[in-house]
Amino acid sequence: MKSFEFTVTHRDSGTKARTGILRTVHGDVETPVFMPVGTLGTVKGLTQEALEDLGAQIILANTYHLYLRPGEQVIREMGGLHRFMSWERPILTDSGGYQVFSLAALRKVSDQGVRFRSHLDGSLHMLTPARAIEIQTSLGSDIIMPLDECTEFPSSAVTAEKAMQRTTEWAAESKRFWCELSQQGENAPGTLFGIVQGGTQAELRRECARRLVEMDFPGYAIGGLSVGEVRPLTFEMVAAAEEYLPEEKPRYVMGVGLPEELPQYVALGVDMMDCVLPTRNGRNGLLFTSQGRMHIRQTRYARDPRPVDESCGCPGCRRYSRAYLRHLFIAGEMLGKILNTAHNIYFYLDTMRRIRQSIASGDFPRFSLDFRSRLQGEVQ
Amino acid sequence: MKSFEFTVTHRDSGTKARTGILRTVHGDVETPVFMPVGTLGTVKGLTQEALEDLGAQIILANTYHLYLRPGEQVIREMGGLHRFMSWERPILTDSGGYQVFSLAALRKVSDQGVRFRSHLDGSLHMLTPARAIEIQTSLGSDIIMPLDECTEFPSSAVTAEKAMQRTTEWAAESKRFWCELSQQGENAPGTLFGIVQGGTQAELRRECARRLVEMDFPGYAIGGLSVGEVRPLTFEMVAAAEEYLPEEKPRYVMGVGLPEELPQYVALGVDMMDCVLPTRNGRNGLLFTSQGRMHIRQTRYARDPRPVDESCGCPGCRRYSRAYLRHLFIAGEMLGKILNTAHNIYFYLDTMRRIRQSIASGDFPRFSLDFRSRLQGEVQ
Repeated sequence: MKSFEFTVTHRDSGTKARTGILRTVHGDVETPVFMPVGTLGTVKGLTQEALEDLGAQIILANTYHLYLRPGEQVIREMGGLHRFMSWERPILTDSGGYQVFSLAALRKVSDQGVRFRSHLDGSLHMLTPARAIEIQTSLGSDIIMPLDECTEFPSSAVTAEKAMQRTTEWAAESKRFWCELSQQGENAPGTLFGIVQGGTQAELRRECARRLVEMDFPGYAIGGLSVGEVRPLTFEMVAAAEEYLPEEKPRYVMGVGLPEELPQYVALGVDMMDCVLPTRNGRNGLLFTSQGRMHIRQTRYARDPRPVDESCGCPGCRRYSRAYLRHLFIAGEMLGKILNTAHNIYFYLDTMRRIRQSIASGDFPRFSLDFRSRLQGEVQ
Repeated sequence: MKSFEFTVTHRDSGTKARTGILRTVHGDVETPVFMPVGTLGTVKGLTQEALEDLGAQIILANTYHLYLRPGEQVIREMGGLHRFMSWERPILTDSGGYQVFSLAALRKVSDQGVRFRSHLDGSLHMLTPARAIEIQTSLGSDIIMPLDECTEFPSSAVTAEKAMQRTTEWAAESKRFWCELSQQGENAPGTLFGIVQGGTQAELRRECARRLVEMDFPGYAIGGLSVGEVRPLTFEMVAAAEEYLPEEKPRYVMGVGLPEELPQYVALGVDMMDCVLPTRNGRNGLLFTSQGRMHIRQTRYARDPRPVDESCGCPGCRRYSRAYLRHLFIAGEMLGKILNTAHNIYFYLDTMRRIRQSIASGDFPRFSLDFRSRLQGEVQ
């Protein structure tokens, strides 16, 4: 079994926010942390050097995508994902479940797992709790996720309950398989988290959390959120799950969020987040700044010599103007996507740094309020 | 008038190869030099930091493209192209003629200039010798090119002669306009080169060169080559033009070449070259290496842990494997294009560095032979 440890270092007195350190074999991660998404073993548009310079401590990679291309076999032969992509810091992988349910064709769920067709070539595949762990072990991921059943939003209480039940059974099966694999030594799997499901039913979230905690995972993810529901409901679900999640274990809300939401999740006691918003929006010319959002394609930036964000320390803001970034975007130049992505990732990572500092210095509630009030809406 | 100076520093005894220094207001350029192409004010896929790190001394930008988008007015208001794109080293711009003849629709050439429709929105424009210089002056280019008439390949001797005659007349008109503008002081144009045309007719090349030299330009370009003709004919045309080009002035062959051809042009006395091959091929997964060409998409690289080129010092070769680059290319990931482009540009720039060193140390003929023999064909 690979070593893993989580220590809470500071607590905010007014909220459930806390700072901590995740220790993995690939190094320490200061929490709360935002994990840039590197679906196919690359955070789109950024070199690994750039990611390091921007301050990424840990990245997320997608099991489904890497399983299909280049395949777990290739990555294992190349010495694992860290070596394959030349990234020495920690990597977290999802189970592949979410992508199977959102991307793949002809998916059939049974108690055994989920059968699906690749969205790339239509080939047939079967993902089971054990296979999900095997694949992630081939990847050499530091933190791995058990297969879960993801439901659409909105789902009925009955559908949500069925999916939660199955997710919980799969979690138990995952844990058993993971324990077996861990005892084999040589090719030990990464740290296995539990995933709380339950749709938008607080009671289901509570039950799922309670049962997972009985299985005693070293960390807990909360999945299936931010899929279309209103934000207060998301927060309610996180809070419901957390009633049962142990204080001393890391909590990870999957697939969130907008910049102004980051302090809100942290205030709920969340330690880890990941999201495609900074990268995907960057490629589409939507920039997050300390003064709100900026659509770089707007005509008003055509002759604007200022950086995107005067207070930003990213490589783009230190060197290039809004006018240049707008030109690159309008002309469809790759450099536009590269610089926009780097800016957005920097903004997210810097926000998390400032959140951690404010928790440590007892200033989190004020920071959170300031930050969110300045971020509403568009740059004026 | 902006300052410009060219000094020959070493000569090869066996060929016409020489090293030199081009002094511009934006710094010195060691020749022979390869200029990466930054069509729209960006070398596709590379940040300006990356370009600097790769050792680019001077880049080329395309007048036609920048004139249409974002427009000379925007760039002038933003303080010129150097400031707009944040590139402090020298910039050479073409006249826009080549793109008008190859990209624009409905082009009508007259003695006055060329009327054309934008390939972007169909809008009507007129490019004259004076306008070409005005636009390049708005861009703030260090080395500017006069409008020339570019013919298709193959062209009849009659067509080639007509185009050569008009190019020569436009060169004279360009020179007059440039002198007027230079005397105005404030917004002085960059150094104006002459462009030798004449298709594949050695006699026309000679005549064009002779007449341009009478006009006394500070440097001479040889245009309209590498457009489909066999390579010995290209070299013959370069040699024919050079019979009349003065030894002490820089010579620039436009739009060339393949890596193995670089020493050949240098051996003919060429000081400057530019080409889209390293960038365009990089985006398409064709890599130039010291052992020949490599199509990174080939299956045989899927599990190849070696760098693209063991002897290469580019950031990609120092960190990433062929297997990873192949994966990125197959998955259509931007990072593949970025790393491939950086590699190819490094290979070109490094080749030119080694050519300069070999000329300085009297070793050029041997270097040239070695280099070319290793480069033929595909990597084995």
